[in-house]
Amino acid sequence: MNTDQNVTDINIAYIGGGSRLWAWKLMSDLALEEKLAGTVKLYDIDFNAAAENEHFGNLLSSRSEAKGKWRYQAVKTLKESLIGADFVIISIQPGTFQEMASDVHLPEKYGIYQSVGDTCGPGGLVRALRTIPLYVEFAENIREYAPKAWVINYTNPMTLCTRTLYQVFPEIKAFGCCHEVFGTQELLVAMLKDIQNITVRRDEIKTNVLGINHFTWIDRAYCRGVDLFPLYREFAAKYYETGFRIPGEEEWNASPFRFAHRVKFDLFRRYGLIAAAGDRHLAEFLPPWYLKDPETVKYWKFNLTTVDFRIARQEGFDGQRRRVIAGVEKFKLEPSGEEGVKQIKALVGLGEMVTNINFPNHGQLKEIPEGAVVETNAYLSDNSIQPVVAGKLPSDVQGLVSRQVYNQETILQAGLKKNPDLAFRAFINDPLVNLDLPNAQKLFHEMLRNTSQYLPGWKF
Amino acid sequence: MNTDQNVTDINIAYIGGGSRLWAWKLMSDLALEEKLAGTVKLYDIDFNAAAENEHFGNLLSSRSEAKGKWRYQAVKTLKESLIGADFVIISIQPGTFQEMASDVHLPEKYGIYQSVGDTCGPGGLVRALRTIPLYVEFAENIREYAPKAWVINYTNPMTLCTRTLYQVFPEIKAFGCCHEVFGTQELLVAMLKDIQNITVRRDEIKTNVLGINHFTWIDRAYCRGVDLFPLYREFAAKYYETGFRIPGEEEWNASPFRFAHRVKFDLFRRYGLIAAAGDRHLAEFLPPWYLKDPETVKYWKFNLTTVDFRIARQEGFDGQRRRVIAGVEKFKLEPSGEEGVKQIKALVGLGEMVTNINFPNHGQLKEIPEGAVVETNAYLSDNSIQPVVAGKLPSDVQGLVSRQVYNQETILQAGLKKNPDLAFRAFINDPLVNLDLPNAQKLFHEMLRNTSQYLPGWKF
Amino acid sequence: MNTDQNVTDINIAYIGGGSRLWAWKLMSDLALEEKLAGTVKLYDIDFNAAAENEHFGNLLSSRSEAKGKWRYQAVKTLKESLIGADFVIISIQPGTFQEMASDVHLPEKYGIYQSVGDTCGPGGLVRALRTIPLYVEFAENIREYAPKAWVINYTNPMTLCTRTLYQVFPEIKAFGCCHEVFGTQELLVAMLKDIQNITVRRDEIKTNVLGINHFTWIDRAYCRGVDLFPLYREFAAKYYETGFRIPGEEEWNASPFRFAHRVKFDLFRRYGLIAAAGDRHLAEFLPPWYLKDPETVKYWKFNLTTVDFRIARQEGFDGQRRRVIAGVEKFKLEPSGEEGVKQIKALVGLGEMVTNINFPNHGQLKEIPEGAVVETNAYLSDNSIQPVVAGKLPSDVQGLVSRQVYNQETILQAGLKKNPDLAFRAFINDPLVNLDLPNAQKLFHEMLRNTSQYLPGWKF
Amino acid sequence: MNTDQNVTDINIAYIGGGSRLWAWKLMSDLALEEKLAGTVKLYDIDFNAAAENEHFGNLLSSRSEAKGKWRYQAVKTLKESLIGADFVIISIQPGTFQEMASDVHLPEKYGIYQSVGDTCGPGGLVRALRTIPLYVEFAENIREYAPKAWVINYTNPMTLCTRTLYQVFPEIKAFGCCHEVFGTQELLVAMLKDIQNITVRRDEIKTNVLGINHFTWIDRAYCRGVDLFPLYREFAAKYYETGFRIPGEEEWNASPFRFAHRVKFDLFRRYGLIAAAGDRHLAEFLPPWYLKDPETVKYWKFNLTTVDFRIARQEGFDGQRRRVIAGVEKFKLEPSGEEGVKQIKALVGLGEMVTNINFPNHGQLKEIPEGAVVETNAYLSDNSIQPVVAGKLPSDVQGLVSRQVYNQETILQAGLKKNPDLAFRAFINDPLVNLDLPNAQKLFHEMLRNTSQYLPGWKF
Repeated sequence: MNTDQNVTDINIAYIGGGSRLWAWKLMSDLALEEKLAGTVKLYDIDFNAAAENEHFGNLLSSRSEAKGKWRYQAVKTLKESLIGADFVIISIQPGTFQEMASDVHLPEKYGIYQSVGDTCGPGGLVRALRTIPLYVEFAENIREYAPKAWVINYTNPMTLCTRTLYQVFPEIKAFGCCHEVFGTQELLVAMLKDIQNITVRRDEIKTNVLGINHFTWIDRAYCRGVDLFPLYREFAAKYYETGFRIPGEEEWNASPFRFAHRVKFDLFRRYGLIAAAGDRHLAEFLPPWYLKDPETVKYWKFNLTTVDFRIARQEGFDGQRRRVIAGVEKFKLEPSGEEGVKQIKALVGLGEMVTNINFPNHGQLKEIPEGAVVETNAYLSDNSIQPVVAGKLPSDVQGLVSRQVYNQETILQAGLKKNPDLAFRAFINDPLVNLDLPNAQKLFHEMLRNTSQYLPGWKF
Repeated sequence: MNTDQNVTDINIAYIGGGSRLWAWKLMSDLALEEKLAGTVKLYDIDFNAAAENEHFGNLLSSRSEAKGKWRYQAVKTLKESLIGADFVIISIQPGTFQEMASDVHLPEKYGIYQSVGDTCGPGGLVRALRTIPLYVEFAENIREYAPKAWVINYTNPMTLCTRTLYQVFPEIKAFGCCHEVFGTQELLVAMLKDIQNITVRRDEIKTNVLGINHFTWIDRAYCRGVDLFPLYREFAAKYYETGFRIPGEEEWNASPFRFAHRVKFDLFRRYGLIAAAGDRHLAEFLPPWYLKDPETVKYWKFNLTTVDFRIARQEGFDGQRRRVIAGVEKFKLEPSGEEGVKQIKALVGLGEMVTNINFPNHGQLKEIPEGAVVETNAYLSDNSIQPVVAGKLPSDVQGLVSRQVYNQETILQAGLKKNPDLAFRAFINDPLVNLDLPNAQKLFHEMLRNTSQYLPGWKF
Repeated sequence: MNTDQNVTDINIAYIGGGSRLWAWKLMSDLALEEKLAGTVKLYDIDFNAAAENEHFGNLLSSRSEAKGKWRYQAVKTLKESLIGADFVIISIQPGTFQEMASDVHLPEKYGIYQSVGDTCGPGGLVRALRTIPLYVEFAENIREYAPKAWVINYTNPMTLCTRTLYQVFPEIKAFGCCHEVFGTQELLVAMLKDIQNITVRRDEIKTNVLGINHFTWIDRAYCRGVDLFPLYREFAAKYYETGFRIPGEEEWNASPFRFAHRVKFDLFRRYGLIAAAGDRHLAEFLPPWYLKDPETVKYWKFNLTTVDFRIARQEGFDGQRRRVIAGVEKFKLEPSGEEGVKQIKALVGLGEMVTNINFPNHGQLKEIPEGAVVETNAYLSDNSIQPVVAGKLPSDVQGLVSRQVYNQETILQAGLKKNPDLAFRAFINDPLVNLDLPNAQKLFHEMLRNTSQYLPGWKF
Repeated sequence: MNTDQNVTDINIAYIGGGSRLWAWKLMSDLALEEKLAGTVKLYDIDFNAAAENEHFGNLLSSRSEAKGKWRYQAVKTLKESLIGADFVIISIQPGTFQEMASDVHLPEKYGIYQSVGDTCGPGGLVRALRTIPLYVEFAENIREYAPKAWVINYTNPMTLCTRTLYQVFPEIKAFGCCHEVFGTQELLVAMLKDIQNITVRRDEIKTNVLGINHFTWIDRAYCRGVDLFPLYREFAAKYYETGFRIPGEEEWNASPFRFAHRVKFDLFRRYGLIAAAGDRHLAEFLPPWYLKDPETVKYWKFNLTTVDFRIARQEGFDGQRRRVIAGVEKFKLEPSGEEGVKQIKALVGLGEMVTNINFPNHGQLKEIPEGAVVETNAYLSDNSIQPVVAGKLPSDVQGLVSRQVYNQETILQAGLKKNPDLAFRAFINDPLVNLDLPNAQKLFHEMLRNTSQYLPGWKF
């Protein structure tokens, strides 16, 4: 449905992206897209990191394979990045590995294991509390300096980041993007190959998506006219015990980020719906069925991602960054698999697309409060995003999801009001927190204290 | 607002009531009401019990203090009781003490303690499963033989009994009555005496009621123009540690049915709302904060009600019944404190009233699905019940309540479809069931087997 | 349900009431209520009128039949009246008879006849436009000086007055009262006497009320257990041609305010619901079925109320006021038939009541937008008003009502934004305005010009 | 987004299409689509017409330019056409020109002019009444013989045809298609050329569509990143007086089907939204602003389409059919401009698309009852249609639209219950029917009588 037009004067504010490789991935995708060009202003609390990205970006732009020519410019203030922006991309790390270590590992002392710790559970909650003030500031600055810009969030906790933006500036044009559903669609691609020896592309898999980020569900999936549910039933049964490895991916135990989809298969067996996120994320939204202890995690063939591992991984990234910047290593220009650039194209009027995004509920998901951020398909077209009516979850899954939605609403209020009592009410209603009240209080306060540097104005 | 009319040709079908003293209480209230008279047909699966009630009722009617003259007649079939009925009162015991013992005590082997076991938790769930088929039958018979009658339910689990009636026969005119909110209003009466030395009647306490049966909340309470919330804050603080005994009632440890309101005070401290049911009920809707083990229960000053105790109590009732029937003991004719007869008066057009009842949601409770049975105030007038718009719960409490609502919807479907898988999904989402999946399966199936006699057509 | 308490320190701000006898009626009801006492501050744009009312009120209070003792005090500013107020009563005349003459009679030149001209139709619309700025001012002052007071509106157009208060100050505790539904209930009382020779009181008639002020409908009515709809069908048929006179009332043609209920009977025959307002009001909400021309009005046995008649009537009031103030004539102290004082009693905690009021929609009326002001039953108790869930209108009547509701929303926006284009969109969508566009424009602008003194800041 | 797959075994039931050229257009589009093939079963109440279409279709399929090869087969019963169908296409003429003449022209005697008479107004209403029983039969047969088929309706009145299908068989997978919005998008294409000299394709115009069929509105339109509303404002002003002719189209007065968009420009000036249908249709949904009399119609530069003209046109079609069938004339194989085949492709999994369709409301259009058929964008993909959340209309336009929606609901009930009283309630609430009640009754009954042959079981 594309037009033959190019849009070559796009202004993007990129907030964050200093520490990881996210920014480079987006830069790659921009470079590979011939119809777009413009300027990216890079803002990071670590200016040097932004400057490095500037350097890298301009280098990339100068390469001959780069069809889309972009100018990168590191700026020193949020305001500078925002003025004139058509798009704002936010991808930050709230806090340091030190806070993350508290989020993820302190609860282990109380018998609470988290496979990620950035979305829900005690870790996700505390991470949300330190993220909310940052997003309040983003929203206020966007209202002031770029009120008409499209804002794309990649930071976790996805739901609460997006929700905060809308709460502070209701007219904001923000949405959140996450590739977890894509991963499940890739699993369905692999399934078709495995069960029926048919090769299809991910974009041929048509799914109805319902839920909240990292706890999304698919209640209908078709490909080339074929209902995928009977096949998935067969597939889940076939690999229920052994788990499944998507060809080309590592074994589940080769990396803390991998998993064998056993949690997903178990959830399908129980609820009849396809849970559409990585097993590491799914497990955290549920009572500790899969996260009871490290042995249980192993049994279900996924992993607890330690912060030590993350630190080591970051060092790897840093090394790579240094080598590339120094010209010692050449960065391989290849598509990231993310949809960000495709979304930008649709929003500037080059084509249109339907994909899953995180967006305030305006009726697309039934029986979820108006305004809560949900993940469903949406229609992106020329300067417009409109959710697709996804319907409703069956009562059994809805009971699991709505509990999290109300917890998120409570955490939002806690963060905005800097109110530890409100936060604690969400804490003890989290499925992973099965502590008695005194222990819950103790853990909660210890976690808050560990992150207190990022809780300006809080009293506890 | 009463008229000066009498209504003397009312036909009541009384279903159940054979084993306990519920029926006698209602008979007393009927006898004490001078404006009503008519016929009560008594149906019980134990015909002898119904016949005893017939005998007792007619005896009562013949007493000179009895201002309302009623004729009692035991009948052998449900159909006979229903034909011609203006009102149907249902108050049954689903199953025997044997099933109840499994409901309440088997989970204790898995570390799950229940203070009542008839509403939620594993016991309430299994009780619901064996109640639903009975209520399907009631609804079908009412549709056939008394479609215009008002149906008043007193049986627990209240919500699912009422919900089943509407699911099977959507045009039914049914509602559920429970005195737990009254108990909380009595606590507020006692509070006014204790804190301000003011004596008021319960009907002067005006409360807004939101929630589901046994897990109802009050978010606004006034008496004689005074906001009761600041007083309750003071009151809850004063008695937080010691608990409170309503003057005239037994100490919390004198009877398994008593409690010192500490759970209620703790919930108020946490959520800022007045939980409006007995502590024994409230505790069961929450993670095992108050029900972790017998010591915790004791610490919070309420009790686990054993089935042995219930059996002994029943024997006491039986003895009393025998003595009264035999003329050895005189039954004291006094008001029960229940509102059933007052409600009947309003519905036949003698006055009107606003009180809390259990009724399908038609917008009275926001963010709860249409049709789910909720407990709020309602306006009862001439042949009409209309819920009062109660508003919505704050997100923290709503998270607790909506989880139960969706569980109930799942249990309903399980019961109607005779589907153990559906029931299990509700089982493992119950806040009291913090088991790993294998243990949850084991307990669930053992409980189902123990009640299998009451699950006709089930396969598991 | 009353307590035995008295409340003797109530502060009432009475806004308006200078020109007519409304204030005196309320004063009478206050004097006749023994449980209430306090102070009434009188504010009117005509201070002399307020001072006269002060004089009259204090005189009344001093009479021995006056059981409730109130102190009346005329004040010179709105602010003075509001400070300390527990209740604010608003009953004003927006504009003079001159503007009213334009509202009511100018459209006649275009063939548009209005029986009242204060609610809908071209006259009601223009009246609303000049009322809205006054109510904006009231709302702003109440927010500033009496934010917790209960505000009772008696001014027409009722819906838009109440709607404006909420739009400007959403936390206001306002509602609107109107006796038109009472009149229909009196008709049902008369019907019972006429058809069945039974004498009942109005408060024994239980009705479900749905709609908007002056265009309310009853879809269920019972009295003493009897369904009144079959009787009304008989009654409407019996008097369809001749019309009906409530015993004790004047003939329909003896006063421009009277009518013979033929419009009501015709609407019942067509829609099967009881229209619950005077025929003069009902006719104005519909296409000119009943208001085609003066002959048609006569045929349906109601009247066009001329402003000349109103002026003459006002002179009668003025004379009476003068004579009473001068002590020449004694004012007869008798109940007004209004419910204002009963409502005040309920709201201060002396009893409770269910009655029809005008209130923002929170789900009491289905398929009407949230926040639009609707008229249904509501439950008034201690410092609380909660609507009763009334259900929904059938599609045929809903089509008539919702059209008016959206018109009112448009008029509100027009009034707040001082936007004649918006107002014109509502004008040409009014059922009485069946003009071609050029004539509609002409009439509209002439009417606006005639009322321009009351449209500060408007440009047209 | 297309796959490279072909689907060559599609079964289509084509109901109707005997008399006009609709069927031939679809056959052309099918022939031009290389990825699809299969069988079309043709059912028409006139079997000869179906047989002619069979002949024509197979001839077309045999032509070398026909890339998609289809087999056509006329069948004698509805059932035969439906068995095995993947798609059901319905395009019928309810009644003959005789009934249509009554629909369109009889009201003229009462001063009511209709430019089309097939959607709303007195003609549309009566046409709906005779269409509903036919669609009841279709729905019942589809439920029986093709419950999983996608049903595409092209018959008018579009809304009530689609609505009836869902009312009778709620699980039906039906939607209605209409090209009127496309026409408005073509106008925007022409506008871009006219105002900015830019040439774009219709599929580059991105619009948000809200409303009901033939009375749809666009509240947001972009093309290539440009907001089209300011341009449309300029465009509407430029051509307000003269009207506008899309280059390549006839002058407005060259054919009764043409118009100069003056109604559309006037609606834009008044409401600020782009009305998205032909002026002939739009005018009929409004009070007779544009349809007061033939002069007014001429003034606004559109036409009253007479049935005589339709008869003459039909004779032209018949001649063409005969000549083509006889081989005297060659049918030109060219795209019809309709989207039916593209929709079929999306639904069989070949690509996906977002376009405007008529579908039951599940929240896509706010403040319109659940289940009412509305026209908004929807997402068509593999065996799935999901509406896009379109938001809500402003109160002024909503007042116009909701009135029609409730009328349609009333007409539906009238048709299903064969109830002339219900139909009359809708009749007198139609904006075009500004008659007094006696005349309305007279016209209504005369119209009913004229169509009585198509109202089986009705009594009036």
